[in-house]
Amino acid sequence: MSAPLAGELDIVIPTIRNLDFLEEWRPFFQPYHLIIVQDGDPTKKIAVPEGFSFELYNRNDIERILGDKAWAISFKDSACRCFGFMVSKKKYIYTIDDDCFVAKDPSGKPINVLEQHIKNLLSPSTPFFFNTLYDPYREGADFVRGYPFSLREGVTTATSHGLWMNIPDYDAPTQMVKPKERNTRYVDAVMTIPKGTLYPMCGMNLAFDREIIGAAMYFGLMGEGQPIGRYDDMWAGWCTKVICDHLGVGCKTGLPYVWHSKASNPFVNLRKEYKGIFWQEEIIPFFQNLTLNKTTTCVEDCYLELADKVRKGLGHIDPYFSKLADGMVAWIEGWRMLNPPKAA
Amino acid sequence: MSAPLAGELDIVIPTIRNLDFLEEWRPFFQPYHLIIVQDGDPTKKIAVPEGFSFELYNRNDIERILGDKAWAISFKDSACRCFGFMVSKKKYIYTIDDDCFVAKDPSGKPINVLEQHIKNLLSPSTPFFFNTLYDPYREGADFVRGYPFSLREGVTTATSHGLWMNIPDYDAPTQMVKPKERNTRYVDAVMTIPKGTLYPMCGMNLAFDREIIGAAMYFGLMGEGQPIGRYDDMWAGWCTKVICDHLGVGCKTGLPYVWHSKASNPFVNLRKEYKGIFWQEEIIPFFQNLTLNKTTTCVEDCYLELADKVRKGLGHIDPYFSKLADGMVAWIEGWRMLNPPKAA
Repeated sequence: MSAPLAGELDIVIPTIRNLDFLEEWRPFFQPYHLIIVQDGDPTKKIAVPEGFSFELYNRNDIERILGDKAWAISFKDSACRCFGFMVSKKKYIYTIDDDCFVAKDPSGKPINVLEQHIKNLLSPSTPFFFNTLYDPYREGADFVRGYPFSLREGVTTATSHGLWMNIPDYDAPTQMVKPKERNTRYVDAVMTIPKGTLYPMCGMNLAFDREIIGAAMYFGLMGEGQPIGRYDDMWAGWCTKVICDHLGVGCKTGLPYVWHSKASNPFVNLRKEYKGIFWQEEIIPFFQNLTLNKTTTCVEDCYLELADKVRKGLGHIDPYFSKLADGMVAWIEGWRMLNPPKAA
Repeated sequence: MSAPLAGELDIVIPTIRNLDFLEEWRPFFQPYHLIIVQDGDPTKKIAVPEGFSFELYNRNDIERILGDKAWAISFKDSACRCFGFMVSKKKYIYTIDDDCFVAKDPSGKPINVLEQHIKNLLSPSTPFFFNTLYDPYREGADFVRGYPFSLREGVTTATSHGLWMNIPDYDAPTQMVKPKERNTRYVDAVMTIPKGTLYPMCGMNLAFDREIIGAAMYFGLMGEGQPIGRYDDMWAGWCTKVICDHLGVGCKTGLPYVWHSKASNPFVNLRKEYKGIFWQEEIIPFFQNLTLNKTTTCVEDCYLELADKVRKGLGHIDPYFSKLADGMVAWIEGWRMLNPPKAA
């Protein structure tokens, strides 16, 4: 089996348990290096199946490595995965939840998620005009009549958001209303989210170019000690989308699918989510109307500028947003410590 | 077979030949009324298969009905189809080209295009935020986690743009480069084109709410005596999209597919298109940056305002755009003549 970019991509997995799920992924993931971010009790021993190349970080490691910035990495929440983005030295990241398994395409063939994500990342995006036949760079497709030729070169792709068969990624109220709903529809498409449009980015099955957008892929302050949960990936999605739009790079969604095996508890989810459900009604217009300084072209600087805007623009909702803005700054400090500028 | 909205939808077909293609559509189209717009020589007799309810307009009819505004309806170009939109008295329009046949879904079942278009038109659109599982109103789908609850009611749908299996809708250069390319990918999705994003709207397989957006569905000046062709539907697509965005209604694309049987001649197409290929590089930014007066809420007034902006904003490209702006005004005059305001 081919393993494209095997030396240039890390797989980041947040977990609190033994990684038995990797057995099913072995043919696809074994050529890649894993970064496991162990959440919760650091004295617990996480078993990793034999034969995988991995490094594992628990809370003690995070404290040791980040010191007085470690507080910015969430505890008891899968948001801790972003620590893995920070310590990686690779150009690309793929992150997956440990309750996601290999999905099959309509012909019954197991889907190689990494192969598809890498295709998505290595082919251009088209954020400035919609192509009705979806990804114009895919075999058997192209730009349709009326697509401006000046835009057909596309732009660099920063993120590739994959989807889920079986258990859809619903919020607690929708889970409660539709406990039996399963996603059985395989939509054979990849598309660029247009510039200026926000989308709900889920962290379950997500790949990105770490060099381009990694510094903005902070999953916020969730879990223990925080008033909110389950908005870690949403936060990262809003932030990365506005920064990608600002930088003129693209975000794709669609293929590949994973098989999401089990729904989390909707009652627990509702407790975590309910403030987010209110707050997002103000947060989303904030992001929709946000513009970054034209002269800011470095992703880290964009992120610091965004932190400042969050403090000023969302602080009135709850003191949490001031703390989150501090967390965003601490994140960049940690990022810069671990990812110093390359020597010229 | 059910025939939803049979009394409220007209099928508009522009043609220059006998409508044998209707035989294949009989089970689906026979419950509906057809408006046939005969292009070219008005003395030619067009045969319509038995059993269809139809009215047929040729050039003489257009001249008689529109008088000194008839020049605004293109001659020797399928853009003449918009005359059918104007004379219809129904709430909904479906328009199809006479080289499009019944496509099959992946299970081999013939696709009922009207049933799907009507589903698209009668369910809301979601132009303000992207839903990663596509149409949230479809059976088996919903809004995903992180989708703002305040936006889940959606907005009224104005247009439903369907796609094509077999011959894709490519421009002449792409036809020439990829003469053998066929679209074999059935993408099982309907989605809303986000607000602020333009798309290349093709007239081959298109439905819309005539009451909401019909007055903006003018296919411009193409064909005989005009410097440009094959941009009729593109023009209507740009105009309707910016007006739909302004009015807060939605444009969908995706299902249903038709089977597009034959590619038009790429050499002839190139001759028709080449000015459009240059011009669209300026026209598209013009539409992307266009804003209509907030107080204009009637579609006809929006269209007149747009005509004025076209005259001022595109006139420098070519005198054609002044004439096109005149055509847009004449179109609205014709529309108002045939569609007087309803008595209160």
